[in-house]
Amino acid sequence: MIPLLGYAGRILRVDLTRRVFKTEQLSEQLVKLYMGGNGFGVKILYDETPPRIDPLSVENKLVFATGPLCGTALPIAVKFGVFSKSPLTGILGESYSSGFFSEYLKRSGYDVLIIEGRSEKPVFLKIIDGNVELCDASGIWGLTCWDAEDAVRSDLGEKRLGVLTIGPAGENLVKFACVTSDRYRQAGRCGLGAVMGAKKLKAIAVYGSDKIEVADPEGVLSIAREVVERSKSARIEHHRVYGTLGTLEIVNDQGALPTRNWLYGFFEKAENVSAEFMLKNTLVRDVGCLERCPIKCGKYNVVRDGQFKGTAIVGPEYQSTYALGPNCFIDDFKAIIKANELCDKLGIDTISGGCTVAFAMECFERGILSEEDVGFELRFGDPEALIKLLELIAYRKGIGNILAEGSKKASELLGAEALAVHVKGLECPGYDARVLKGTALQYAVSSRGACHLRARVQVPELTGVVDRLELKGKGRLVKDREDLFTVFDSLIICKFALPIFDISDIARAYKYVTGYSLSEKEILTIGERIVNLERLFNVREGVSREWDTLPKRILFHPNQGIVTSKEELNTMLNEYYKLRGWDLETGKPTFEKLRRLNLL
Amino acid sequence: MIPLLGYAGRILRVDLTRRVFKTEQLSEQLVKLYMGGNGFGVKILYDETPPRIDPLSVENKLVFATGPLCGTALPIAVKFGVFSKSPLTGILGESYSSGFFSEYLKRSGYDVLIIEGRSEKPVFLKIIDGNVELCDASGIWGLTCWDAEDAVRSDLGEKRLGVLTIGPAGENLVKFACVTSDRYRQAGRCGLGAVMGAKKLKAIAVYGSDKIEVADPEGVLSIAREVVERSKSARIEHHRVYGTLGTLEIVNDQGALPTRNWLYGFFEKAENVSAEFMLKNTLVRDVGCLERCPIKCGKYNVVRDGQFKGTAIVGPEYQSTYALGPNCFIDDFKAIIKANELCDKLGIDTISGGCTVAFAMECFERGILSEEDVGFELRFGDPEALIKLLELIAYRKGIGNILAEGSKKASELLGAEALAVHVKGLECPGYDARVLKGTALQYAVSSRGACHLRARVQVPELTGVVDRLELKGKGRLVKDREDLFTVFDSLIICKFALPIFDISDIARAYKYVTGYSLSEKEILTIGERIVNLERLFNVREGVSREWDTLPKRILFHPNQGIVTSKEELNTMLNEYYKLRGWDLETGKPTFEKLRRLNLL
Repeated sequence: MIPLLGYAGRILRVDLTRRVFKTEQLSEQLVKLYMGGNGFGVKILYDETPPRIDPLSVENKLVFATGPLCGTALPIAVKFGVFSKSPLTGILGESYSSGFFSEYLKRSGYDVLIIEGRSEKPVFLKIIDGNVELCDASGIWGLTCWDAEDAVRSDLGEKRLGVLTIGPAGENLVKFACVTSDRYRQAGRCGLGAVMGAKKLKAIAVYGSDKIEVADPEGVLSIAREVVERSKSARIEHHRVYGTLGTLEIVNDQGALPTRNWLYGFFEKAENVSAEFMLKNTLVRDVGCLERCPIKCGKYNVVRDGQFKGTAIVGPEYQSTYALGPNCFIDDFKAIIKANELCDKLGIDTISGGCTVAFAMECFERGILSEEDVGFELRFGDPEALIKLLELIAYRKGIGNILAEGSKKASELLGAEALAVHVKGLECPGYDARVLKGTALQYAVSSRGACHLRARVQVPELTGVVDRLELKGKGRLVKDREDLFTVFDSLIICKFALPIFDISDIARAYKYVTGYSLSEKEILTIGERIVNLERLFNVREGVSREWDTLPKRILFHPNQGIVTSKEELNTMLNEYYKLRGWDLETGKPTFEKLRRLNLL
Repeated sequence: MIPLLGYAGRILRVDLTRRVFKTEQLSEQLVKLYMGGNGFGVKILYDETPPRIDPLSVENKLVFATGPLCGTALPIAVKFGVFSKSPLTGILGESYSSGFFSEYLKRSGYDVLIIEGRSEKPVFLKIIDGNVELCDASGIWGLTCWDAEDAVRSDLGEKRLGVLTIGPAGENLVKFACVTSDRYRQAGRCGLGAVMGAKKLKAIAVYGSDKIEVADPEGVLSIAREVVERSKSARIEHHRVYGTLGTLEIVNDQGALPTRNWLYGFFEKAENVSAEFMLKNTLVRDVGCLERCPIKCGKYNVVRDGQFKGTAIVGPEYQSTYALGPNCFIDDFKAIIKANELCDKLGIDTISGGCTVAFAMECFERGILSEEDVGFELRFGDPEALIKLLELIAYRKGIGNILAEGSKKASELLGAEALAVHVKGLECPGYDARVLKGTALQYAVSSRGACHLRARVQVPELTGVVDRLELKGKGRLVKDREDLFTVFDSLIICKFALPIFDISDIARAYKYVTGYSLSEKEILTIGERIVNLERLFNVREGVSREWDTLPKRILFHPNQGIVTSKEELNTMLNEYYKLRGWDLETGKPTFEKLRRLNLL
């Protein structure tokens, strides 16, 4: 067998029901067709799980995957992906995070970890230099993510661990529970923490010291040095200084910051929750992933005074700030940090959590929820109410038990569907798709639901590289960027690196690491293949053209008279489907397209 | 001398300084060139007052004018106009109202009443069947409009009077004080109540029983009957059933309802302040002007329960509801009725009053005003704060003394110019000019500042007769409708009648009443002449192209990314100026245009 340079070369399969572990070789075929990360995760789920299963049942699987660039000297390859059928959306769930899990899993000999079955009792999984062990977790079940992680680290007496945990939200099967990585990083979206919770898997701790063999170590080092050098450029500087929060005032200035449960696209007090405010008031230091990434977009913030004094997180990111702040009409930055900390400790995705609270606030304001239903006044702009409600959700207490289902299901239960802002069940990220047409399209078609990361079309739209209100060409833009960023998620590298790491750099790096020489076109074809396989997974679950739509608040809501209408969406969808080779009527990939992509 | 059929034929001039009255003949020249109402008012001010005077000084004059159709059988000719240099804007001020004043002034022998000079002590003016008397008003000085009117009526022992009053706001020279007519109707805009207050004229009571001679009484009766018949049409039905408030949900549905001091164009709780809500909860009966107008758009509302039980007004109109409700983020309809009643009693224009409070609320939210400055929390959405602040303004107490200057001056004093939403000092009516381009143009060019009545361009824009986002043709639309509605304001007839009373009806009615046969074109030329004379008045006060602009919140404010930009405005302005025959650079009427209009 040819050694798969750049890969650990093995898959670890853990069956929680039978408490057995199995190691499998990574096939060259899988590597060549699917590259890594996202490709591996989706391929495994598509092949191994039957259609229409309950995501929280024993049949569902949870896949953690790294990619060929992870564990190398490349400082932007610090991420891993989590894949499963999502309990929030009922379709493909995927989410990415950073932290030492990525590097240590690979260096302990595994590119991929597959969790199957379900444990009867709470367990945690140890993977230390290839030794796999399932440990009793009854002592840490019920703890917050942070406390559980501290307990695991202290138990193992090893500081240098990658640790994944779930919090009370994951345990209680909150449909938007996240998987926490090294305390401050989350695989937040799609409720994959609830899948861990259903499997009674409280935590995973990994350490590995293998060296990842690469084809051309000098080449890898040189491109790593280039990345560090280029990261000093102006295009990265803004990100390093302000972090993702730096985008908030830019977005707001363009009327694209969803506010008050997407009633408006502008937040009058944006400056109170801006990066400038953070820099002046709470920032302690910049944090680069694995203490290695030169972009250092992480911001360690500590509240120094007032009611929330002592609260400390890496964050809040832009998306968390949008969801817990403006979208709840809250402008108290320190309270947002507090709510973010609570989400992190309890294991709640901040976007879905914040948006579900915003949805509930509007239900309250409109009289759909009463004080009797909630237990307190749940008005827009009230940080105390936000904080109280997040706790109720994590523990599924009172109204929290309904809201823990996510805003789509909760809105159905409450008869308030028009107020829930989601696509395919996934709450919308904080870019107003009424004034960003390509962003609307990406929300409508992205495989996991309303996603801002698969194509990141908001970036060219917000920076004016493309006309944000133009429809023509948006199908092309979304399609091309989906293919490209699917490659990022397969390698796996951080998308914030795009300005200094483009497709030509990817081709070079992939060759240095694996020895395989792929053209840019061949690499993008892998991305396209994975996008189509994701679509096949979703089609199997029932997804069709009708599913590729937008929430009522975007389609019909009269905000300044500007919506992205069904007609506008259809215009863009037609362009997108044609370029994708998907049937215009059903939205399914055509046989011709699947054949060309080796998917038949 | 030829009898001027349809006119009373005389002007009453009252010099308050010297306490003398003078009657002058109306000249045929004035009638032929300026028709009545608006034409008379502006011509008199232009000819008789020097440039650059202080509007509250003894030099300023206050002109009340009726028109040729007033006092006839035509049920829509129930209005009068008030004209003066405005203390709010420093340029031409004009405002219209209805009530018996119009008919009785004319039937007591006067088409026009000119108030000059300034009384030392409070007075009220009686004009009873041609007998003019100045009476001591020290006993009613300080009373609300309603109490003062009751006192005047009771003093004169005559129920059938037209009574104009000012309230404490007018006495205290609040720059947006209104002139109240028969309790429930106001000449609200431009602060003309403060001019009355400066002249120490508390009230005017009029009764007249002369018959207005018309050229063709049968013709007038037939057209009056036609109007009554046509008023049963569907186009008027909506207005009769819902009143002006019926427009609120239509405007909101198009994202054009200014909300939260124009931060947004959509109010989430519009249904709580809608005509539907009014019909279900507070409406007692429909009110037609002079108990005669068949449109009956007036709505008499009584609050039947709660904190404001017993509050009763004719209203609130759409504009009052916008300004006191959504623009202050208030959705308590009964509190809006209360605030409206307070404005009516104190003599405050509801649009400028509500908008100035909304401006102050935003100042408070942004920390420009503190609780110490205001004396209480002045948050958006708080009806108690609105009500308290309106009282402070009327009596110029505390922060009210600054806000009584209007939002333009107050914003300069507070260093918050960007938050004040006005054109030339007049607070903007409730149609979001960011998404209604012609409406933006009419606000920018209208002679009294941000005016929704001079051209009523919002109507074709909101009803989809023209594309509201199109720029081309908006100059033409504004110009043509300004000319037309200036004719309405000169006749004087109600603009709500347009759907059943167009320019051909005007030509017929004018001939029946006066015997003068004018073509539609000749009539519109009179409108154009008056518009140009208004412009000359303003040019004399310093107005130039730079003044024809829009507030920052419309030009720059990023609401859903949609603004009416300086460039867009300039495009429309150029078209408008060209059609007007005004110099593109200075915005002054060209000599050629003035010569053609007999203005040179």
